[in-house]
Amino acid sequence: MIEDGAILSDEGRILWVGEGNDPPSMGGDAVDLVDLEGRWVTPGLIDCHTHLVHGGDRAREFELRLAGASYEEIARAGGGINSTVTATRAASEDQLVAAALPRLDALLAEGVTTVEIKSGYGLSLDSELAMLRAARRLGTERAVEVVTTCLAAHALPPEYRADRAGYLRLVIDEILPAAAREGLADAVDAFMEGIAFSGEETAQVFAAARKLGLPVKLHADQLSNLHGAALAARFGALSVDHLEYTDADGVAAMAAAGSVAVMLPGAYYTIRETQAPPIAAFRAAGVPMAVATDCNPGTAPLTSLLLAMNMAATLFRMTVDEVVAGVTREAARALGRHRDLGTLEDGKHCDMAIWDIDRPAELVYRIGFNPLHARVVRGRMIRR
Amino acid sequence: MIEDGAILSDEGRILWVGEGNDPPSMGGDAVDLVDLEGRWVTPGLIDCHTHLVHGGDRAREFELRLAGASYEEIARAGGGINSTVTATRAASEDQLVAAALPRLDALLAEGVTTVEIKSGYGLSLDSELAMLRAARRLGTERAVEVVTTCLAAHALPPEYRADRAGYLRLVIDEILPAAAREGLADAVDAFMEGIAFSGEETAQVFAAARKLGLPVKLHADQLSNLHGAALAARFGALSVDHLEYTDADGVAAMAAAGSVAVMLPGAYYTIRETQAPPIAAFRAAGVPMAVATDCNPGTAPLTSLLLAMNMAATLFRMTVDEVVAGVTREAARALGRHRDLGTLEDGKHCDMAIWDIDRPAELVYRIGFNPLHARVVRGRMIRR
Ligand SMILES: [Zn+2]
Ligand SMILES: [Zn+2]
Repeated sequence: MIEDGAILSDEGRILWVGEGNDPPSMGGDAVDLVDLEGRWVTPGLIDCHTHLVHGGDRAREFELRLAGASYEEIARAGGGINSTVTATRAASEDQLVAAALPRLDALLAEGVTTVEIKSGYGLSLDSELAMLRAARRLGTERAVEVVTTCLAAHALPPEYRADRAGYLRLVIDEILPAAAREGLADAVDAFMEGIAFSGEETAQVFAAARKLGLPVKLHADQLSNLHGAALAARFGALSVDHLEYTDADGVAAMAAAGSVAVMLPGAYYTIRETQAPPIAAFRAAGVPMAVATDCNPGTAPLTSLLLAMNMAATLFRMTVDEVVAGVTREAARALGRHRDLGTLEDGKHCDMAIWDIDRPAELVYRIGFNPLHARVVRGRMIRR
Repeated sequence: MIEDGAILSDEGRILWVGEGNDPPSMGGDAVDLVDLEGRWVTPGLIDCHTHLVHGGDRAREFELRLAGASYEEIARAGGGINSTVTATRAASEDQLVAAALPRLDALLAEGVTTVEIKSGYGLSLDSELAMLRAARRLGTERAVEVVTTCLAAHALPPEYRADRAGYLRLVIDEILPAAAREGLADAVDAFMEGIAFSGEETAQVFAAARKLGLPVKLHADQLSNLHGAALAARFGALSVDHLEYTDADGVAAMAAAGSVAVMLPGAYYTIRETQAPPIAAFRAAGVPMAVATDCNPGTAPLTSLLLAMNMAATLFRMTVDEVVAGVTREAARALGRHRDLGTLEDGKHCDMAIWDIDRPAELVYRIGFNPLHARVVRGRMIRR
């Protein structure tokens, strides 16, 4: 923390950060001075795990379940992940962009300057690529850096129900290579779980990703301990996400690999999980912890990173410092972008959030309150 | 639900609500037609339980507790309810208004048109009246109906630690009569709990309130079952609030008295309570259920009624219909204002919330998302 500090930026990068109001002489260059009037400045927030691009919503399913409908009744009414796959496949790329924009705007209104967006509801070559293109386009429609992840191994699409190996071949031989060739994916993700893909299947997807030169990350150990954290660490994963059921071996493997543990308390809250991730073990082992919204239509229809921060503290007992680092420095690391993003240091992108608060703890303490004054993206100030 | 409907209002009251675009002839009177372009309209939302007016915040205490500080360390750092009492007493009426306005604005931005505000952090004659005056003033600073509640029996102030009876005399003989005389309180509330006031003490306060002609409500059975619900029902309470530990007798007493059960899931969430209120029993007994934020600096620093709605569904398993009624019709009943507020019917105030949604379930399903298009307060449209 720097009190009474100043930040000097040029061409979208930070040149100097320090105490006092006198940045080093610019050798006669003109400087535009912006007085932040004593406000707090943090790095721009980074939401490092979202499914922001998707068709449809699951409000009807939510309503039916609360009214006591059975699993079968919900399935008959078109519920579950397949309903999102159907709606996503039916949407054009333009429609995917239009549907995602209000969700993205909600994140930006709270100081987000970088957002990760996954595919994973297309589950076909065309539809996965359309999701990734829509994600990339969001980064041109708004002042935000978009990092994309190909999550073709999210679920088995209905037409492959009897042919798991066939779908894996589609992912490995067609979807991942096409995404890599077109520069549409910055990383590759998978969902390793009893209801999704096994460790062996995940390893095949990860091996293919590494051959394409793409880093990996994993949805792991959310509902049960399949030792996904250890498997992801073996592939040098940038991050492992969820982690409610990760054991000591998984924690140790992540520490050794330098993988970031991404906490997704919005999903924990929505599915009323009772086992929290092993925060104390991550802390003791020095595993970096990030916090993200997981914004998705099924288990976390959440578009507030500030609320995810409060949940990480309230439900998981992360400290204020851990939570703030978890949406800045460690979130950048979870995306492999820590050389450019996540802290206010010379040489990094000049991405900042400017707040009307008395102390940073307020960002975590308040619930459903937005004290953002303005964002700065690549040196450009954008008022809320 | 009315599809393709219209609402006719005059002088702030609803004259007619019905299907079709043709309200009954106005006998030649000019009509200003506002096309809502197919948007959903609900009654203006009512937050029927808040502590919106207070000095200071408890962000530092929140931070210390997460960092593992002991109860003593937090008390030494000035934590707990006494810190809010100190900050509230130190604030002028203007400062109380200024501090509450951003919190009020957060509620209004989500479609709230009526808000209840309690005193209870002043705990002296002057300071309780200052809180209530600040609450009343908020209703003139913004387009919102403010309903006030005197909660002088919230906690024992430090200077009365050794004289409980003395503080009760102050409340009964001075604070309540002054609040009633100056028209500052629409109701009287108390906090009945092991850490606050006993049933006998609460009954004294309630008897005094009834003598002054003021209806009562109660913070009851939040942390333990002291049979507060039954006691409040005996006094014909408008509402009983919290209710996590209420038993079958309490439910039956409330049903017989017609008291509304006010659910405060934000406090349940923040204190990580695990026992939910007996929703199924309230439902079976026909006890009306409302939902509110409880916005307060200690156990629910929550300024989003939409989020309280999601929590009531997610954590308490209230249905979408119950939740929507809980922030409109039943919230009006909890304030004794159901003749004027809470539904869209002829004769009631023309207070509405207009939404960019496809179905009302979205208001409950989404987390940290605000689809409000505009509010209408006493017939006047106010764009977000
Ligand atoms: Zn996810
Ligand atoms: Zn309260």
